[in-house]
Amino acid sequence: MCNRELRDRYLAIRQFSETLLGPLQPEDCVVQSMPDVSPTRWHLAHTTWFFETFILKRYLSGYSPVDPSYEYLFNSYYNTVGEQFPRSRRGLLSRPTVREVCDYRQAVDERVVRLLDDPPQEIAEAAGVLEVGLHHEQQHQELMLTDIKHVFSCNPQNPAYRRGKPPHADSAPQLRFQRYDEGLQQIGHAGQGFAFDNELPKHRVFLESYQLADRLVTCGEFLEFIDDGGYKRPELWLSAGWAEVQSQGWQAPLYWQRQEGDWHQFTLNGLRPVVAAEPVCHVSYFEADAYARWAGVRLPTEAEWEITAVGEQIEGNFVESEALHPRPAGEDSGIRQLYGDVWEWTSSPYTAYPGYAATEGALGEYNGKFMCNQLVLRGGSCATSQSHIRPTYRNFFPPEARWQFTGIRLAK
Amino acid sequence: MCNRELRDRYLAIRQFSETLLGPLQPEDCVVQSMPDVSPTRWHLAHTTWFFETFILKRYLSGYSPVDPSYEYLFNSYYNTVGEQFPRSRRGLLSRPTVREVCDYRQAVDERVVRLLDDPPQEIAEAAGVLEVGLHHEQQHQELMLTDIKHVFSCNPQNPAYRRGKPPHADSAPQLRFQRYDEGLQQIGHAGQGFAFDNELPKHRVFLESYQLADRLVTCGEFLEFIDDGGYKRPELWLSAGWAEVQSQGWQAPLYWQRQEGDWHQFTLNGLRPVVAAEPVCHVSYFEADAYARWAGVRLPTEAEWEITAVGEQIEGNFVESEALHPRPAGEDSGIRQLYGDVWEWTSSPYTAYPGYAATEGALGEYNGKFMCNQLVLRGGSCATSQSHIRPTYRNFFPPEARWQFTGIRLAK
Amino acid sequence: MCNRELRDRYLAIRQFSETLLGPLQPEDCVVQSMPDVSPTRWHLAHTTWFFETFILKRYLSGYSPVDPSYEYLFNSYYNTVGEQFPRSRRGLLSRPTVREVCDYRQAVDERVVRLLDDPPQEIAEAAGVLEVGLHHEQQHQELMLTDIKHVFSCNPQNPAYRRGKPPHADSAPQLRFQRYDEGLQQIGHAGQGFAFDNELPKHRVFLESYQLADRLVTCGEFLEFIDDGGYKRPELWLSAGWAEVQSQGWQAPLYWQRQEGDWHQFTLNGLRPVVAAEPVCHVSYFEADAYARWAGVRLPTEAEWEITAVGEQIEGNFVESEALHPRPAGEDSGIRQLYGDVWEWTSSPYTAYPGYAATEGALGEYNGKFMCNQLVLRGGSCATSQSHIRPTYRNFFPPEARWQFTGIRLAK
Amino acid sequence: MCNRELRDRYLAIRQFSETLLGPLQPEDCVVQSMPDVSPTRWHLAHTTWFFETFILKRYLSGYSPVDPSYEYLFNSYYNTVGEQFPRSRRGLLSRPTVREVCDYRQAVDERVVRLLDDPPQEIAEAAGVLEVGLHHEQQHQELMLTDIKHVFSCNPQNPAYRRGKPPHADSAPQLRFQRYDEGLQQIGHAGQGFAFDNELPKHRVFLESYQLADRLVTCGEFLEFIDDGGYKRPELWLSAGWAEVQSQGWQAPLYWQRQEGDWHQFTLNGLRPVVAAEPVCHVSYFEADAYARWAGVRLPTEAEWEITAVGEQIEGNFVESEALHPRPAGEDSGIRQLYGDVWEWTSSPYTAYPGYAATEGALGEYNGKFMCNQLVLRGGSCATSQSHIRPTYRNFFPPEARWQFTGIRLAK
Repeated sequence: MCNRELRDRYLAIRQFSETLLGPLQPEDCVVQSMPDVSPTRWHLAHTTWFFETFILKRYLSGYSPVDPSYEYLFNSYYNTVGEQFPRSRRGLLSRPTVREVCDYRQAVDERVVRLLDDPPQEIAEAAGVLEVGLHHEQQHQELMLTDIKHVFSCNPQNPAYRRGKPPHADSAPQLRFQRYDEGLQQIGHAGQGFAFDNELPKHRVFLESYQLADRLVTCGEFLEFIDDGGYKRPELWLSAGWAEVQSQGWQAPLYWQRQEGDWHQFTLNGLRPVVAAEPVCHVSYFEADAYARWAGVRLPTEAEWEITAVGEQIEGNFVESEALHPRPAGEDSGIRQLYGDVWEWTSSPYTAYPGYAATEGALGEYNGKFMCNQLVLRGGSCATSQSHIRPTYRNFFPPEARWQFTGIRLAK
Repeated sequence: MCNRELRDRYLAIRQFSETLLGPLQPEDCVVQSMPDVSPTRWHLAHTTWFFETFILKRYLSGYSPVDPSYEYLFNSYYNTVGEQFPRSRRGLLSRPTVREVCDYRQAVDERVVRLLDDPPQEIAEAAGVLEVGLHHEQQHQELMLTDIKHVFSCNPQNPAYRRGKPPHADSAPQLRFQRYDEGLQQIGHAGQGFAFDNELPKHRVFLESYQLADRLVTCGEFLEFIDDGGYKRPELWLSAGWAEVQSQGWQAPLYWQRQEGDWHQFTLNGLRPVVAAEPVCHVSYFEADAYARWAGVRLPTEAEWEITAVGEQIEGNFVESEALHPRPAGEDSGIRQLYGDVWEWTSSPYTAYPGYAATEGALGEYNGKFMCNQLVLRGGSCATSQSHIRPTYRNFFPPEARWQFTGIRLAK
Repeated sequence: MCNRELRDRYLAIRQFSETLLGPLQPEDCVVQSMPDVSPTRWHLAHTTWFFETFILKRYLSGYSPVDPSYEYLFNSYYNTVGEQFPRSRRGLLSRPTVREVCDYRQAVDERVVRLLDDPPQEIAEAAGVLEVGLHHEQQHQELMLTDIKHVFSCNPQNPAYRRGKPPHADSAPQLRFQRYDEGLQQIGHAGQGFAFDNELPKHRVFLESYQLADRLVTCGEFLEFIDDGGYKRPELWLSAGWAEVQSQGWQAPLYWQRQEGDWHQFTLNGLRPVVAAEPVCHVSYFEADAYARWAGVRLPTEAEWEITAVGEQIEGNFVESEALHPRPAGEDSGIRQLYGDVWEWTSSPYTAYPGYAATEGALGEYNGKFMCNQLVLRGGSCATSQSHIRPTYRNFFPPEARWQFTGIRLAK
Repeated sequence: MCNRELRDRYLAIRQFSETLLGPLQPEDCVVQSMPDVSPTRWHLAHTTWFFETFILKRYLSGYSPVDPSYEYLFNSYYNTVGEQFPRSRRGLLSRPTVREVCDYRQAVDERVVRLLDDPPQEIAEAAGVLEVGLHHEQQHQELMLTDIKHVFSCNPQNPAYRRGKPPHADSAPQLRFQRYDEGLQQIGHAGQGFAFDNELPKHRVFLESYQLADRLVTCGEFLEFIDDGGYKRPELWLSAGWAEVQSQGWQAPLYWQRQEGDWHQFTLNGLRPVVAAEPVCHVSYFEADAYARWAGVRLPTEAEWEITAVGEQIEGNFVESEALHPRPAGEDSGIRQLYGDVWEWTSSPYTAYPGYAATEGALGEYNGKFMCNQLVLRGGSCATSQSHIRPTYRNFFPPEARWQFTGIRLAK
């Protein structure tokens, strides 16, 4: 990619963050509704800090920071860079304001563009880091949406991020399992193109024959699980999952609530009825696993998912479509809804691939140090950018997490 | 007070809340930095809810609420009125925005003025409730300041509410104890004038002879306590106080921090050096009690304070002076700094006076139900309005509270 | 008291602790069922530590401790003596065993007797401390019973400390209020006889006229409160009490449980039906206060209680009677059940009397440092020793405590 | 195995539990020093409950339970059987006493023997369940030791379970890595012999070539890690591990403490100096992983371990040797210390093997429901019975667990 293309791509992705900011009031950008959630202002500033820290400070000679306190305030978890303002206290900060954060963004963007227009010797290295920064920004764009959804859901007024129509679908097509043969396969990233270090190296795995559902589990199907006492039967749950059901009082996916007997769900478009044909969303790994056990099947491994997905078209309901909701499965045959609706829980704990080596330096903290007590999710959601996704992409969350757009694909 | 006077007073006090809002950004008005703190927006809306609930809904015929959801969102603790949005979650709400809250204020104010201009039959009763509402608003004006101070103190950037100069004072006058004789005395409110129900009835108490310090304890004196190991010597502390020192890691008053060997304190004017001659502020009852024990004396009872204060002029460094900081004692003789610098911890637990009866109805929840595990404070602080204070006024906080403008007067 | 009398009294009181140990198995003596509860072994050792620390180490020349580790293990809260093994971890210790603790007791007792038989010069001082130690032992005898009751109550097998018959009483006599005139009175201890420092000095208080109930509130009366929704009506409760009701799920006094529609209570004799005529027991201050408010009256102050009780006979259902349960009121007229049934909550926060001075030295930590967030109780319970009680005695517990034998007398 | 052999084996294993009880006092058998620990009495009763519930109630016609309350009290986590007394409250029970539990054991043993002497029709099925019960008892024998070690470690008196001499070893042999080639391998249990359901089925895995250390990491080597700031360098730790280091204040393996500058460790023989040549023990997965990263290598996968171990002799320092401590590596060449010293952390999350199916019925809750947020450990420790171990055995604990005999073998 030439510098000009890189600059345009940089500006476009940076601009998209501010597009997402559009519908929000300054007050909305302050709240941290739980420790996992970060305020919108923080996302906007942290992604900027990323470019300032890893690009400008390294490659722009004589660079002087926009505000020295930002190094501490907007460092997320890079111990190599320095101390961090505690994550759980991000919601206690009202300054810098939204406007000041936007000024920070502009100041950094100007300097990055200047750097690209007048590239230093290490431009190849810098371009690689910049690419990481852009994927990082896209990850935080998704988090801006999932986090503001959680924030708004705490308000009994049910504020909407945006007004839109719910998708219509009378029914989902019959679920079918596609069969795949056993064999020694290869998964992981190789070749050109961007990938995070956790997708490397490409390596051999032996897979028994397996079957994969041709679409996602729907809300209607999940309602059957609820109505069959799914949340009251410990035999369906992992032990840690059952503990969570009881301590948290789970009775349905996150954002579902009964109103006068009918199930509604809170969405970025406000509160609206649950639509049976839509993919179920905002379920934890525990719920996905319990559902699969109830259905007499199981969740796929990440290798099964990747081998299946590798030839398929990466298209779907990505965030650029402005739908911000997983779409019901269409009538086409084949494996559907692999990309762009919900992140699909796999049964694979998030671990290092054989031969994995973390990136050198601070960016080595990006992925590797989280390889514990998390599960891999695949596919990308309706809040993900299309240019951010690929078949080898490994997302990961702890088994109790529900505030991401996470759903269920079955295997057996 | 005639209706016109009441209207003017109403508008003036209501306006002062918005004056206090002046220096803040919308983002500042969202944060709840600990459960005791409420966001600025909440204070502005809750005081408005008070007039809407107890005046407009009762006395304005055909009144229709500005927004039905506000009844739940902005009810603080009146079970008689209905359910309340949980106090500890006030910081999770970003809506209504500051602007929407100001619109709410204006809508209610217009209707209250209309009511006063065209008074109903029960105007005498309504005027009494309105008077409670105005004192209530003044209490929340003080809380707006103490709460935003706490919010700003959580930000490593040390934002200032307002820029101002620290008071100058080379030294405090020598502390002297004034002596008062034993005798059967009367305390509590009687006669015209406003008072909360907890100041009633006037009643007899027998006091042994006592001595009261003629000024407040200074920062310089408190530094001697610190330097003498005050925070490390359990024998100086109540058992519960010592537990708090250890679990919270107290080493100085709230908002004090060492910078390169010198003590600084965070104020509404930003961070600045501790001034030896100023009254010590932001100490808990536990610290006040430990200081007194270290000094070989004790704290006064509320009866001792009231008997002493009853004839003194109510003047001082009240919030209208815009100082927002307790002033050093002047050189005049007599009992100084009784009013308008810091709330003075007394050794009296907050209990009902003999013959106390809570107000009928929802307003009976205002004071009486908090008569447990709190101590009485007297005098009013530099964040209090002068028209809000009187000798019989009983403020109360739990012994560990430090975020109010609280200080120490000694007795023996 | 001559040394011989003192020796006999010492041995009798020490022996009574071991009498109370009688019905227990070694396993019973280990458990700490909540932080407030101490294991039986700990009580037996701590009271012994008291004599070793404050008598033997001070007055027996050349004394060498039985086991040096006991100084740390069995110090309760005397910072002046040294560090303490953390209170909340007492239940983690299995050693020293019951037998070893009894050996410790015997070793200390032998030396104390030797000291009394061959008294040192400071015998008068030592006798005073010994007297404190004996009252201290009697306090812990009561705690042994209240604590093992709590321990056993956690076991679904409902073990009994002792088998006994419940008291029979068809009904309680009609409750009547006795009237007392206003006046300047005196309360507090003076003269010979033993008293703790917190009962000093005798001092004047002015009392308005008051009325005191001639008997305790019964279980039958308290059931009416429950049946009238007492635990579901926030307007009856102090704010902190209502928070406790909700967070703890209180629906009845501690140890009450419904079995097939009927209320039972767990007692030291095992589980048995609630008897309507018995005094209600194991209620917190919050419940006592809410009951009084429901009944349209109030709780007495400690001064009202003491003035009333001072001339009455100190007799009742004390622990030596082996009843271990409050007795129903008899048919005699006058003020009944003042002593020996339940500790009676007063509305008086536990504070220093005017002129109070804590004992010098470590024993000054006995009472004074707890004067915060506690309420005074009067009268002594069926688990108290008769020789331990007097009209000026001030017991104190936090308002949420329920595991003591605490009940309700009304006033107005 | 014929019934007589089975009976003898049953009696021998059951007897061994009581042998382990030998050195303990009744008081020792009550304490639960943390939620993971169970009181000795509970282990003795629960293993008996297992035989009563799954053998006697099913296969002994007309069986009447020894005590109906035990079904609830001693059910660990079998929801299929019924409700369970809460795990975290096991230490609140003092009854049944040790003696009563031993009576319970005897009563059940007599009936099991009677059943085996007069076998029912379903004897083959019953024998299978009995075999599970015996391995279950052996697991709890190990837990009795690890749990009492933790209990004793909470006592500042450092009680010893048994007095014994520490092993002598001047130095450990040079650590060497053995190399193994890549290839498609098989792991998991097949054929006769006992195995838990989680070892099934035998299945293919592809392994890259790997190297495995020929002995365990020693205390001396681990001290180098400590001295090199291992516990202070976040870059060495998984993110969740670093959080644990900070919140728990870890500075060394569990049970290590400095005394006058020298490292000591608390053992079942009491407190004694750390011996450099011994395998390091009582480290969490987080510490094992951080150590490996510091050493520039990694932990093995469970497949690597099993492929390596499958041909090796199962002999070592098992509990029957009475050493109760991992032994230093000997001078023989080859892979050493695979069995019977410490459980070896692998990097493999505990998940289902491909094709795994949980046992039908309540025993299906034995293993499968714990397949979340745990890591596999291999090899067996000095507290394990030799007859309990085999190459395919999969032990599992959460990554923060340290109270088991867990250590480190390196791979690369």
